[in-house]
Amino acid sequence: MVTSRWTAAPAPAATPRRRGAVLERAILDAALEQLSTVGWKGLTMEGVAAGAQTGKAAVYRRWPSKEDLVADALRAGLPRLEAAPDLGGVREDLLALCRQARDGMFSRSGLALRSVIHECDTFEAERFHSVIVDGVVEPTVKLLRDVINRGIERGEVRPDAANGYVWDAVPAMMMYRSKMCGCEWNDQDLEEMVDQLMVPLLRSSAG
Amino acid sequence: MVTSRWTAAPAPAATPRRRGAVLERAILDAALEQLSTVGWKGLTMEGVAAGAQTGKAAVYRRWPSKEDLVADALRAGLPRLEAAPDLGGVREDLLALCRQARDGMFSRSGLALRSVIHECDTFEAERFHSVIVDGVVEPTVKLLRDVINRGIERGEVRPDAANGYVWDAVPAMMMYRSKMCGCEWNDQDLEEMVDQLMVPLLRSSAG
Repeated sequence: MVTSRWTAAPAPAATPRRRGAVLERAILDAALEQLSTVGWKGLTMEGVAAGAQTGKAAVYRRWPSKEDLVADALRAGLPRLEAAPDLGGVREDLLALCRQARDGMFSRSGLALRSVIHECDTFEAERFHSVIVDGVVEPTVKLLRDVINRGIERGEVRPDAANGYVWDAVPAMMMYRSKMCGCEWNDQDLEEMVDQLMVPLLRSSAG
Repeated sequence: MVTSRWTAAPAPAATPRRRGAVLERAILDAALEQLSTVGWKGLTMEGVAAGAQTGKAAVYRRWPSKEDLVADALRAGLPRLEAAPDLGGVREDLLALCRQARDGMFSRSGLALRSVIHECDTFEAERFHSVIVDGVVEPTVKLLRDVINRGIERGEVRPDAANGYVWDAVPAMMMYRSKMCGCEWNDQDLEEMVDQLMVPLLRSSAG
């Protein structure tokens, strides 16, 4: 039998030992997967570790609690919003932004976020509430403000439309109809919202 | 010892025996009280019976389950919406309507309803979801439509404002800000919403 440097190496594990960002990403992904399948109540640190093909210790080392892990998994999984679209007119810009918001809402992470909030008790839900506000709502509202301000500069939008009630109208309506009647905000729904709610709300009298 | 018709009667109970609507009202009221103090999870049929100074059987006879009892208690406790206010102009009419909606939202029943939905699991919450829709949202939206239609007839409101996105704007915004930042919708908040969101949205170009 020929002994060589190769055979002296330890037998490779079923999965190569990962470190750092790669392992963290696998754990966060496994957490999102657990949320989608068994939900908040069914998720366990052991289950997440198994899904990430690692040991419990690797999970607990980085995330001391279930809440910490799930909050990070939700945040990491949210689609990045691109810069405020500039397609030449406020109606088109708004539509593009609404589609991005819709895609986020119905992404695996967005759906996981909403069902987690539904399943959690009040104290736990506060934690994820801030994931929604910081991770979804505030970035979306910032882009809405950019689009609306650009419309004001162009003279398409009345100057006094730069206020919180106008910026909140899209997220408020999207959350409301989603909750009240399970609206899935397809492209036609979004067009109707932009044309029947936002365009009249923003239109300058010169337009 | 003088025996008379009076002493032959049974000794009066601590509370006179009530029947019908009076007893039902006492039970529903006790249920609302329990919801306000110990919440959905803490509420028991025994606790409600005790609060209504009656026996468990009287409760179960009318409401076979906790969900049935709580749904009725919430519904019964909601303030009645008056007819669509007619104060001479759409801004004043809207404001009066928004104040009614706010009063309902922050009534003992309205608060109990929202905390119950928060505490319930998905299956139970569906039941109370319909209490919100049938008992609060639909009546409010109907009155909003009446006010807006009157405004269209008067020429104050543009004719194409008679659509679902316009009618939903007030409940959507009220729920959104209540949930997102704990807004309590005082009179000034309501005025700002009417002036910054609804008036521009409804205004006819002739206005």
